[in-house]
Amino acid sequence: MENQDEPLLLTPGPLTTSPATKAAMQRDWGSRDTEFIALNARIRERLTEIAGARDSHVCVPVQGSGTFAIEATVGTLLPRDGKMLIMVNGAYGHRIAKICKILGRAYEIIETPEDVPNDPHALDAALAADSGISHVAVIHCETTSGILNPVEALAEVVARHGRALIIDAMSAFGAIPLDARKVRFDALVASSNKCLEGVPGMGYAIIRNEVIAAAAGNAHSLSLDLHEQWQAMEGNGQWRFTPPTHVLAAFDQALEQHRAEGGVAGRGARYEANRRLLINGMRALGFETLLADEFQAPIIVTFHSPADPNFDFSRFYDSLRSSGYAIYPGKLTVAESFRIGCIGQIFEDDIKGALAAVGRALDELGVVNRSPAKAA
Amino acid sequence: MENQDEPLLLTPGPLTTSPATKAAMQRDWGSRDTEFIALNARIRERLTEIAGARDSHVCVPVQGSGTFAIEATVGTLLPRDGKMLIMVNGAYGHRIAKICKILGRAYEIIETPEDVPNDPHALDAALAADSGISHVAVIHCETTSGILNPVEALAEVVARHGRALIIDAMSAFGAIPLDARKVRFDALVASSNKCLEGVPGMGYAIIRNEVIAAAAGNAHSLSLDLHEQWQAMEGNGQWRFTPPTHVLAAFDQALEQHRAEGGVAGRGARYEANRRLLINGMRALGFETLLADEFQAPIIVTFHSPADPNFDFSRFYDSLRSSGYAIYPGKLTVAESFRIGCIGQIFEDDIKGALAAVGRALDELGVVNRSPAKAA
Repeated sequence: MENQDEPLLLTPGPLTTSPATKAAMQRDWGSRDTEFIALNARIRERLTEIAGARDSHVCVPVQGSGTFAIEATVGTLLPRDGKMLIMVNGAYGHRIAKICKILGRAYEIIETPEDVPNDPHALDAALAADSGISHVAVIHCETTSGILNPVEALAEVVARHGRALIIDAMSAFGAIPLDARKVRFDALVASSNKCLEGVPGMGYAIIRNEVIAAAAGNAHSLSLDLHEQWQAMEGNGQWRFTPPTHVLAAFDQALEQHRAEGGVAGRGARYEANRRLLINGMRALGFETLLADEFQAPIIVTFHSPADPNFDFSRFYDSLRSSGYAIYPGKLTVAESFRIGCIGQIFEDDIKGALAAVGRALDELGVVNRSPAKAA
Repeated sequence: MENQDEPLLLTPGPLTTSPATKAAMQRDWGSRDTEFIALNARIRERLTEIAGARDSHVCVPVQGSGTFAIEATVGTLLPRDGKMLIMVNGAYGHRIAKICKILGRAYEIIETPEDVPNDPHALDAALAADSGISHVAVIHCETTSGILNPVEALAEVVARHGRALIIDAMSAFGAIPLDARKVRFDALVASSNKCLEGVPGMGYAIIRNEVIAAAAGNAHSLSLDLHEQWQAMEGNGQWRFTPPTHVLAAFDQALEQHRAEGGVAGRGARYEANRRLLINGMRALGFETLLADEFQAPIIVTFHSPADPNFDFSRFYDSLRSSGYAIYPGKLTVAESFRIGCIGQIFEDDIKGALAAVGRALDELGVVNRSPAKAA
């Protein structure tokens, strides 16, 4: 059981980071100092390595949250006369559509329900039908539900049609394999504070060399222009605008821990063990998952809220919080639910502790019937 | 003398922060947690208090660097059919012009040399001549040179013409008085890591209540839409997109220290003492300042590079760096120069130490003639 004042974060970011990662924020860095420039170069190189993209892509970081990085990538890579097709099965797919709308760029969506993966056949048909579609956007793991989309199959379709692929790998990168030598993409976008277990404050795109080089003048924004950011960094290794120095120092440290844990394979195996333990334990308590197991990513799990009228999410949350665990509300549009994350500095004993706390919370609330409020 | 590995930052941000500010980053916060929501509310309230704007304005924070906050404010407040007049005497004025250009908003500039303050009479004439100018942008302290612009006189002119004023107070806010009850502005923009001595990673605008309420639909960007950000925060106290939680925890702590130091008056007095000591000491060493003393803000001081052919900025920088002090290169377009900051956790003994290090560096380099390379 954790200290009530600092709960374990069973959330999809911000998440619980290691003491060493936080300790890396105990010094101030000059943003133009050679040591800090080297730290940034190390981070950028490590990120392209994790993506298997050292020979083909370059990492361009940007300040802000993951959405800032997504918007920057869409704005920088999608030409003003381009058209984006977005594969949607949750809030983050819709968010890319909203970005395109605000930016005044043409777009279309193919939507499947929140518990159904993106359909490569539907993508194939859409690309065959509309040669005006220049770019396709896919969410690797849609955090809305925790569903894993078939990014390899989707990428194969996009490549076959000769279009450009942008992968929102925000909540998957670093724990679920995605290798540029096997999966063709123009850009992969993620942030510091998901599976790589840094603190929040910056994102990045890993962009094909010739694509970023050709992207001058597309961007709708000064701050979010990744082409200008890339040019500046290639020039003197510095950020164009004041970087979040402490966030970067923490990220550098977090990446070292990712390597020490065995990279994507090691990190993914721990999260996978967390997921298995969590789902088995919650099922033993009577809960049902939204997703069929084969679609469930080892990142965050959506559980249906119990039908029992004694179940109240706020009280459930508060009870867990007082036991030292912070969980996440649901984001589904179709059913009452809540979410529990598997990522961050979370280990077997933490999941066991959380399951015990869930059991206590149900007893406190007097929740007898834990099966869903609606048929799934 | 400081540890060579962690120099004292005599730079205008990132800057040297206090141990307590850095210690506040030693825990992880859930971004939807009630404690974190309270922390954000406290920060927003404290910032409007510092601006004397509690009854008239609201603080809207945004992730990223100061430039992100400036772009967000311009994009959110300047209507698509508005026109911005920018008072320019350095790089940050030109940056606002660049933002307007990229956003496709009409703009004009009135430029004075880098060592000459903005001219209220020229502003008056321009507003009289062009009723299409809806907004005026002013840089309170232009970090390019360290010059203080006459923001009170400029604001009076803008108010008399019934136009809207946006103040880029990035490097002044918290140390140079600016009170909304005395100076009329629609928005004041600043960041966490200047005179308030937080770490970098977020900025904010302090916006007149009725102005932000009327700003729906102006923004060119999802991430940088301060109207949507304001609406979300007024609704549930949460950020729309993952906030830089550790940066905010540090900022909360830094604001408490600002209050303990006596607020704007106390902080400003320390910086002013730093400035006086620095300028007197550098003059005693033979250097000349770019600015006349009456235009010099107590933030950052620009010194002319010495004429002596033995002076080489890189070697000078490296020598100071090895003594434990990081300074800043010049940003002037018209003369060789360098800059030394007065802000951050910098005290009398630090300035004395830096002056001694400058003396040693000049001896090492064999710089005999310290007067400017060109007539000022």
